[in-house]
Amino acid sequence: MSVTVNTYNPVMPRWTPNTRERLAQAAMQLYLQRGYDHTTVTEIATHAGTTERTFYRHFTDKSEVLFGPSTEFQDTIVNALKQTPPDSNPLEAVISALEAAQLYFQGDLKPFQQRQNLIDHQPELASRELHKMATLSRALSSTLQERGLNQLTAQITAETGVSILKIAFRQWLSGLDPNWTQCVRQTQAALKEVISG
Amino acid sequence: MSVTVNTYNPVMPRWTPNTRERLAQAAMQLYLQRGYDHTTVTEIATHAGTTERTFYRHFTDKSEVLFGPSTEFQDTIVNALKQTPPDSNPLEAVISALEAAQLYFQGDLKPFQQRQNLIDHQPELASRELHKMATLSRALSSTLQERGLNQLTAQITAETGVSILKIAFRQWLSGLDPNWTQCVRQTQAALKEVISG
Repeated sequence: MSVTVNTYNPVMPRWTPNTRERLAQAAMQLYLQRGYDHTTVTEIATHAGTTERTFYRHFTDKSEVLFGPSTEFQDTIVNALKQTPPDSNPLEAVISALEAAQLYFQGDLKPFQQRQNLIDHQPELASRELHKMATLSRALSSTLQERGLNQLTAQITAETGVSILKIAFRQWLSGLDPNWTQCVRQTQAALKEVISG
Repeated sequence: MSVTVNTYNPVMPRWTPNTRERLAQAAMQLYLQRGYDHTTVTEIATHAGTTERTFYRHFTDKSEVLFGPSTEFQDTIVNALKQTPPDSNPLEAVISALEAAQLYFQGDLKPFQQRQNLIDHQPELASRELHKMATLSRALSSTLQERGLNQLTAQITAETGVSILKIAFRQWLSGLDPNWTQCVRQTQAALKEVISG
């Protein structure tokens, strides 16, 4: 949920300094053309005009191209949570932290949709996404417990926050509402209604 | 979350009819002794006094021993949801469906704790558990949508139900409260508090 993939530019010169971005673009193009399973790291490197060795200097494996630097997205949200007033309602604090992810969710939807389509149809990638969300939930729960919240409340608040993130992301991805904050708040409102209803 | 593993009985005769149970017990014993990674299907079969071929008649792979028949647990909850009154509050309906899982969560805690410890420390098993929960969430969401709920509300209700299930299960596993229904209701109460608070 955290990588912007631009369309590959075939006239990009070989000496362009942004090797990482170039590799990501080449990978994405090949994943879409040939399928994730049928694309090798060697092919990605060749397509980007570089070597396999260079690929591994930027990414640990094929899937990391789609997931970005492993903790960056999580750190953004956890740091935003840490900056909320310590006495605020824990779920409200988590939700306002989710709003900080807005910086990832903007611009052209198409590359995000292409990326999600790859993830949804490839079990290895789907697993990685599930793990990423589970890790985020644990990190949010720890942060809430450091603020003095009991374990049970911290866990259910963190899990609920991640549920809202996942569903708001699908809303945003559908293109029905281009505003990330509104997608988050709409999902929260739906939850409030079933809980109080 | 759905398999009761009894302690292995070394004097169990070879001709015992319950081959599946015997294989499960042998597998669990070896996983705990040697580690999941270092146990082969051949070893499990030998330990249970049978053959690798017989193992594969009962289980598709090593991990299925720990997860039981793939859809049984999910079917129990989804069928319970289908039996709730169609006009009931959707989250209440999901929660009362979760209570139907009580049949899995009783008896000696130790085999459940041993099993969970294996899962928590083995990425392949942890992935399988995450997938199982994601699949359950989709099934609950579909069932709610068949009852006329809009997609957004159905998704957040289903995700919240699965969050409650996961956290209630950890509560129950901790041994602090042996009553499954109480673990579920306690988790629901904690969520209600952060939402209305």
